[in-house]
Amino acid sequence: MSQKYAIGVDYGTQSGRAVLVDLSNGSEVADHVTPYPHGVIDEILPTSGKPLEHDWALQHPDDYLEVLRCSVPAVLKQSGINPSDVIGLGIDFTACTMLPVDEQGVPLCLKPEWRDNPHGWVKLWKHHAAQDEADQLNAIAAERGERFLPRYGGKISSEWMIAKVWQIVNEAPDVYEATDLFTEAADWVISQLTGNFVRNSCTAGYKSIWHKQDGYPSKEFFKALDPRLENITETKLRGDIVPLGTKSGELTAAMAELTGLNAGTAIAVGNVDAHAAVPAVGVVTPGKLVMAMGTSICHMLLGTEEVEVEGMCGVVEDGIIPGYLGYEAGQSAVGDIFEWFVEEAVPAYVKEAAAADGVGVHQWLTERAGAYKPGETGLLALDWWNGNRSVLVDTNLTGVIVGYSLLTKPEEVYRTLLESTAFGTRKIIDAFHNNGVPVDEVYACGGLPQRNHLLMQIYADVTNREIKIADSKQTPAIGAAMFGAVAAGSAKGGYDNVVDAAKAMARVREETFKPIPANVAVYEKLYQEYSELHDYFGRGANDVMKRLKALKDEASH
Amino acid sequence: MSQKYAIGVDYGTQSGRAVLVDLSNGSEVADHVTPYPHGVIDEILPTSGKPLEHDWALQHPDDYLEVLRCSVPAVLKQSGINPSDVIGLGIDFTACTMLPVDEQGVPLCLKPEWRDNPHGWVKLWKHHAAQDEADQLNAIAAERGERFLPRYGGKISSEWMIAKVWQIVNEAPDVYEATDLFTEAADWVISQLTGNFVRNSCTAGYKSIWHKQDGYPSKEFFKALDPRLENITETKLRGDIVPLGTKSGELTAAMAELTGLNAGTAIAVGNVDAHAAVPAVGVVTPGKLVMAMGTSICHMLLGTEEVEVEGMCGVVEDGIIPGYLGYEAGQSAVGDIFEWFVEEAVPAYVKEAAAADGVGVHQWLTERAGAYKPGETGLLALDWWNGNRSVLVDTNLTGVIVGYSLLTKPEEVYRTLLESTAFGTRKIIDAFHNNGVPVDEVYACGGLPQRNHLLMQIYADVTNREIKIADSKQTPAIGAAMFGAVAAGSAKGGYDNVVDAAKAMARVREETFKPIPANVAVYEKLYQEYSELHDYFGRGANDVMKRLKALKDEASH
Repeated sequence: MSQKYAIGVDYGTQSGRAVLVDLSNGSEVADHVTPYPHGVIDEILPTSGKPLEHDWALQHPDDYLEVLRCSVPAVLKQSGINPSDVIGLGIDFTACTMLPVDEQGVPLCLKPEWRDNPHGWVKLWKHHAAQDEADQLNAIAAERGERFLPRYGGKISSEWMIAKVWQIVNEAPDVYEATDLFTEAADWVISQLTGNFVRNSCTAGYKSIWHKQDGYPSKEFFKALDPRLENITETKLRGDIVPLGTKSGELTAAMAELTGLNAGTAIAVGNVDAHAAVPAVGVVTPGKLVMAMGTSICHMLLGTEEVEVEGMCGVVEDGIIPGYLGYEAGQSAVGDIFEWFVEEAVPAYVKEAAAADGVGVHQWLTERAGAYKPGETGLLALDWWNGNRSVLVDTNLTGVIVGYSLLTKPEEVYRTLLESTAFGTRKIIDAFHNNGVPVDEVYACGGLPQRNHLLMQIYADVTNREIKIADSKQTPAIGAAMFGAVAAGSAKGGYDNVVDAAKAMARVREETFKPIPANVAVYEKLYQEYSELHDYFGRGANDVMKRLKALKDEASH
Repeated sequence: MSQKYAIGVDYGTQSGRAVLVDLSNGSEVADHVTPYPHGVIDEILPTSGKPLEHDWALQHPDDYLEVLRCSVPAVLKQSGINPSDVIGLGIDFTACTMLPVDEQGVPLCLKPEWRDNPHGWVKLWKHHAAQDEADQLNAIAAERGERFLPRYGGKISSEWMIAKVWQIVNEAPDVYEATDLFTEAADWVISQLTGNFVRNSCTAGYKSIWHKQDGYPSKEFFKALDPRLENITETKLRGDIVPLGTKSGELTAAMAELTGLNAGTAIAVGNVDAHAAVPAVGVVTPGKLVMAMGTSICHMLLGTEEVEVEGMCGVVEDGIIPGYLGYEAGQSAVGDIFEWFVEEAVPAYVKEAAAADGVGVHQWLTERAGAYKPGETGLLALDWWNGNRSVLVDTNLTGVIVGYSLLTKPEEVYRTLLESTAFGTRKIIDAFHNNGVPVDEVYACGGLPQRNHLLMQIYADVTNREIKIADSKQTPAIGAAMFGAVAAGSAKGGYDNVVDAAKAMARVREETFKPIPANVAVYEKLYQEYSELHDYFGRGANDVMKRLKALKDEASH
């Protein structure tokens, strides 16, 4: 049999990327990016020019198809691979990015009667205008003692499916009525490729409150939210929910024409971007925490039993790797904090010195920060610039820096911010490890680990665990391609399961970051200090952050 | 009688300034600055080139005479005033700035046998190398239950006379032996003008642990420090101690030649710079707090009874205005914090925007910070960048900022830093006011109040008190001239006491800063938050700052 390939398509916030992957070893043969023509729609609706309210974020569904039309032919052409040797395709997507479609699967926003109604459009993951609905949902769920709540760290996010649907019910009941299905964008794109609609267990579990044994929340719960939602799980949220790696169907003739792939190519069910990275770094068993590190961190971990862990984002059976409980936690700002610092708090002389050295400001600061020993700055920070997702689940917490002196230098503050995010990750690891979901090794993928070795050494020292780094910048796309290969199966030259696929295709760098005992000892002390401030400010001893936010809100109105 | 004048000479850290003042109304007729030729000597000794140790800060005594030789003739020339109409001269000085002199009053460092020994030189107020001695002194005083300790907020500073003398005993016993007198530089300069050595009650009280009733600490105490110090108060610290405004003597013929003034001109005893400012803004009675605001703040207040106030720097009878107890407290960094921020934490785009607007960075930030309402930043800081002098008396405390978000702007942090120093002053005012030393009005002098109106409005709102601003940039020099006029007396066209002098000569601006009730209400809430964090970090609930400093010290060694 000739060498076989699969394509992974990674749908990000601003663009989509196709990567053509060699199934024998996971190497990237070709790679192409298509920026979304409409980008993130957060100011005016492209059809009517109508301004959107604050906190809205929409997308255009045709932009997702544009990626298939442009990037898939491009990687075929670049590589010169025969389409017959491309045996499968998988995708990974931002989530919860959702849209309403009609009986034919046509997005409402593409239909003349709904195109001017913003609720007819795709709501991007970072659409934050359903906070009222999320707050009410959480209050009602808590009051009713709904057993799903602890599986989500006690809070359902405004970014997720039910809050977004409820916003539509409240603000555009006609759109709600006209909707046949609410679907994740990931599942919709797959349905366009195969002509067959199924839901994937990952987004259903993490974003739509679905549970493999319990199913969706009860009708009574939905009725308590709003009588119009009572039957939603049988109607607008209906559809088979299948594990990751399942073959969703085969490429249609129309889509074959559009993409240049052969009709009948196996198509995997959709997946979430961060989650697709897990098998791509070779993690298919418990004990290994995977961090997708960028503007924020998504932490993923496999377990064999469902336990409650404080502040996790969710635990879903088959949610990451089929056959395991998939645990997810997160830090809401990481790279974003470093970026804020460089934009808003780094003096001109640093910018000038970096330019004179011909390096970026991050690199200049990192080089100098690396000359300090742990503890040498005298500074300590709480990494809550964008609230705290795990383990405190509190968006009203804010950042703190303690230890300023008249001699404090920018590179010292920078190092302190790097360290603070490592302490945040340590909190999450401790929460899992001490509650029956062991964490023995750590894997990192995403932009940050590639760029900043000091950061990774600090994470190794703070967590006292070896850290392995993905040997690719396109880890989610490679994971998506793996699931495409699993959808094709071994008979076609793919794999029968993602464990086999990962064994052959996963790639981490040879160089790893190992804890340095002297650093571990100092960071252990600093972590005790971090923990004391974490609990003081975060667990009610002093709610000054919330009172400051309340004063700020009063003053701004 | 023709119009009469006096000269005030203000001795700062880098230069000395003479101001010729009209005694009828306090207006400045002429003004001249002489930079010290040797500046602050903190790297090498000018004679031998021998490097100085860390934390040393010396000066050359002849630099002080250079100010008399240059600046006094200059103001006479500038003004065209007849020297016969200059009836008095006073000086104010940094303190404790001290030196060892021989039986003829010659500084040891000017004598060939001692010129190469750094201990023979003037130790400037900010010479910090006697910290070990200060620590031991405080421990011994506390153990012995010395009653002077509470008068200094429980701590004698390493900057003061006894610690500095003890360092000489320990490190240069031969210099100690060869010394006839240890003297404040202020008193030495006056002795050079008059040929007559007396000590002023201000520096004796605040810096040399002298008390009008109790005198110096006992021989037993000094013996407990070091047997060689046992008799120091009768020997090397001997000399009459007289209230401020006392005529120390008359200008000698030699000095008349040097300065262009008439021999016989009345010379007042020396004073401390900040303290001289008090009558210059018209404060000669209790209830009125004077703030000398610059890199730090010195708070001065008159009282009629000696009471213990937490964390004050000192209480001295006749220490500010004869006839009253003079209370002093302080914040160790104020303008220094704003300067640190602009140097180390303001991004390039602010610097560029300020340059484009043709204004300084402080002004640019102040204008934008002024657009925020109290509470609107969502931020709160503890102003401990250089430790906390009053009321906690703890150099190991450090700065904190709480409330950072990804949207935090530099002007918001700047405003927060301004506010934090106002909260620090409020703590001091509360400590006095609630312990029997009332504070009804506030006066401000120095560079900051002249430059930053937003700052002064914040102080008025935070303290809920009207603030009056000195109508001069040379307030201490004007105060020194007042004491010169008092030394001359009314028969010569001067004044019989500083109350009369202040009535005629003190000047504050017509424009005052009045509390704005809406702001007062919000700041009252923020001050409660400040106080809670102040006590949490500053009174032992969480000594994280000290542990961070200890870790920093370990890491740096």
